[in-house]
Amino acid sequence: MSFELKLDNAKYWRDCVEAIVSLVDEGTFNISKDGISLRAMDPSGISMISFSMPSKAFSKYEIDKGQDVGLNIDNLSKIMSRTRDDEALVIKEAEGKLLLEFVGAKSRRRYRLHLIDVRKKDDKEPKVEFDAQVEVDGEHLKNALKDASLISSYIAFKAGKGHFTISAKGDSGDLEELNEVDGTGIRKLDASKDAESVFNLEFLENMVRSSPMGNSIKLSIKSDQPLKLTYNIGDAAVTYFLAPYVEE
Amino acid sequence: MSFELKLDNAKYWRDCVEAIVSLVDEGTFNISKDGISLRAMDPSGISMISFSMPSKAFSKYEIDKGQDVGLNIDNLSKIMSRTRDDEALVIKEAEGKLLLEFVGAKSRRRYRLHLIDVRKKDDKEPKVEFDAQVEVDGEHLKNALKDASLISSYIAFKAGKGHFTISAKGDSGDLEELNEVDGTGIRKLDASKDAESVFNLEFLENMVRSSPMGNSIKLSIKSDQPLKLTYNIGDAAVTYFLAPYVEE
Amino acid sequence: MSFELKLDNAKYWRDCVEAIVSLVDEGTFNISKDGISLRAMDPSGISMISFSMPSKAFSKYEIDKGQDVGLNIDNLSKIMSRTRDDEALVIKEAEGKLLLEFVGAKSRRRYRLHLIDVRKKDDKEPKVEFDAQVEVDGEHLKNALKDASLISSYIAFKAGKGHFTISAKGDSGDLEELNEVDGTGIRKLDASKDAESVFNLEFLENMVRSSPMGNSIKLSIKSDQPLKLTYNIGDAAVTYFLAPYVEE
Repeated sequence: MSFELKLDNAKYWRDCVEAIVSLVDEGTFNISKDGISLRAMDPSGISMISFSMPSKAFSKYEIDKGQDVGLNIDNLSKIMSRTRDDEALVIKEAEGKLLLEFVGAKSRRRYRLHLIDVRKKDDKEPKVEFDAQVEVDGEHLKNALKDASLISSYIAFKAGKGHFTISAKGDSGDLEELNEVDGTGIRKLDASKDAESVFNLEFLENMVRSSPMGNSIKLSIKSDQPLKLTYNIGDAAVTYFLAPYVEE
Repeated sequence: MSFELKLDNAKYWRDCVEAIVSLVDEGTFNISKDGISLRAMDPSGISMISFSMPSKAFSKYEIDKGQDVGLNIDNLSKIMSRTRDDEALVIKEAEGKLLLEFVGAKSRRRYRLHLIDVRKKDDKEPKVEFDAQVEVDGEHLKNALKDASLISSYIAFKAGKGHFTISAKGDSGDLEELNEVDGTGIRKLDASKDAESVFNLEFLENMVRSSPMGNSIKLSIKSDQPLKLTYNIGDAAVTYFLAPYVEE
Repeated sequence: MSFELKLDNAKYWRDCVEAIVSLVDEGTFNISKDGISLRAMDPSGISMISFSMPSKAFSKYEIDKGQDVGLNIDNLSKIMSRTRDDEALVIKEAEGKLLLEFVGAKSRRRYRLHLIDVRKKDDKEPKVEFDAQVEVDGEHLKNALKDASLISSYIAFKAGKGHFTISAKGDSGDLEELNEVDGTGIRKLDASKDAESVFNLEFLENMVRSSPMGNSIKLSIKSDQPLKLTYNIGDAAVTYFLAPYVEE
């Protein structure tokens, strides 16, 4: 195996890894001519991440043939957290390990990470024809999740023509959050018919954590079907799926 | 029961609730034509809070007749902590619950809180003819409490004509803090005779926590009698009483 | 015994005490005509601090005759942490205790600390003829220690003519950090021959914590010998020694 990739700003890769580690602690990157991708379910099987970053996002992208790189994402994330300002990052294979080289003006740090075998599961994206798509400001959604977390461990998303409502019910009381589609909080809303589902808040909070400040998050909803939550980090696309919560 | 109150700045009510929750986790607000008030002892019975906020502090204040609203103050405080900038707050009764509606430019959040029965105790304010009254800058007092907490769990306040001294004694050593009445740290001092008492630091720290930056805190002292500690949050008046500590 | 010392800026002494308490929780200051000094081993015996501060660092330095002042450095450090801006500090003996008087514009705080007997050990500085001396920017070194701590509890310093390398090996992978001697990260490097040793990271992190922002830290290295790590806080000199880690 042999590849060498370079990013002019190491923080770009740090942010991508954060989006992945928020859901899974190990995973296999597939490095192909087109780019890097990773698909993995969280250990509980309730949610999935599908990550892809095109080769054009890199300032250097050299690869022989497609290959899989299994990593402890937790360790990778810790190393990436040490990124300094103005560092470039070289990612390559070296002696059966993954070499991460941070290149600053006057110093170089080289981390070598062991490769691991990650058991491949048949992680297919759920196929859903969604009834509603909502584009929300990332900070607006993060705030709404925090509001709900004071009341419950679950949150309901309800979208229809011209309205998107967030609600939560708990022992102490309940919350209802009405939003106008105004280009600020709710940026866009397309609904062919009403859709409503309840989701686990902790998973949602992990999913939105790494969405870049100022960006939109897109929610795709269909009643009692998995949620699809997507956002971009530069050219990279982050997609999460989350099974609905069904009260027993 | 029926009432509807409005504050143009929800943070005002948030700050008031913080001053209450620092001492008690449930309580009954009395809503009358004149305003809102609450009086409650902390669970240990060592201290008491007496809170009042006149109707003029509200931009809308509609009420049929006086009534009691028992609440879990802990839950109320968590909800108020989610106040955003530039939100107004409507407080009203709805279907036997307390409705808190945060009104922003483009969104509304409605929390409904269950009402609870709070066992009414005969919570009368202690009647003391204080010998000394000291008006202290809030930050100055907070700092003095932190100083003392390094030495002991108790602090002594000693006031007399022209002097106010804070002291603490502990296993590692002792502290004495002398203050001039200068208009900055100690803003005013009236003492008919010397007064000295020792108080529990943790209670004092909870009491001063919510005093607004830049405000004065007024201490009323009489030897071996409860302390009276008061400050204002806008038009609202916060009064705490704290029993003196008597060494056994 | 009788002495009275004064510093125009209490924060100076606070910073010195922080450098000491990072390694030992009790110790004996020797106060002589020349200045104050303290030498102590940490409880585990792996490391040592040697602190000295010349009399000229003080704005007032009055002393009868040399004497020892044994203190709980932990308590001293807590008290010093309460230093406010623009306070002077008077250190003197009073009734068999150490009196620390913080003098602000309009208030005085007097702490009295018990003196304690600290068992005197024969704490001699190790005599080593070092092969390499490296002057590193303090923040650069702190960052390198944090990098290594993600990988291991130990770090290797390797210095030779024109190069200084930091490395760490762990279960998840390894790290190698190459530095140019450029006047920024690595400010100076003198090596008569190659020197390499491995040290405990936690001790190193404690040692560098109090080095003032922007200052240099000097590392003296000889293979398999104790490290000498020194920096200045104003006129005061802080020297640590740390035994090398030898893999069993």
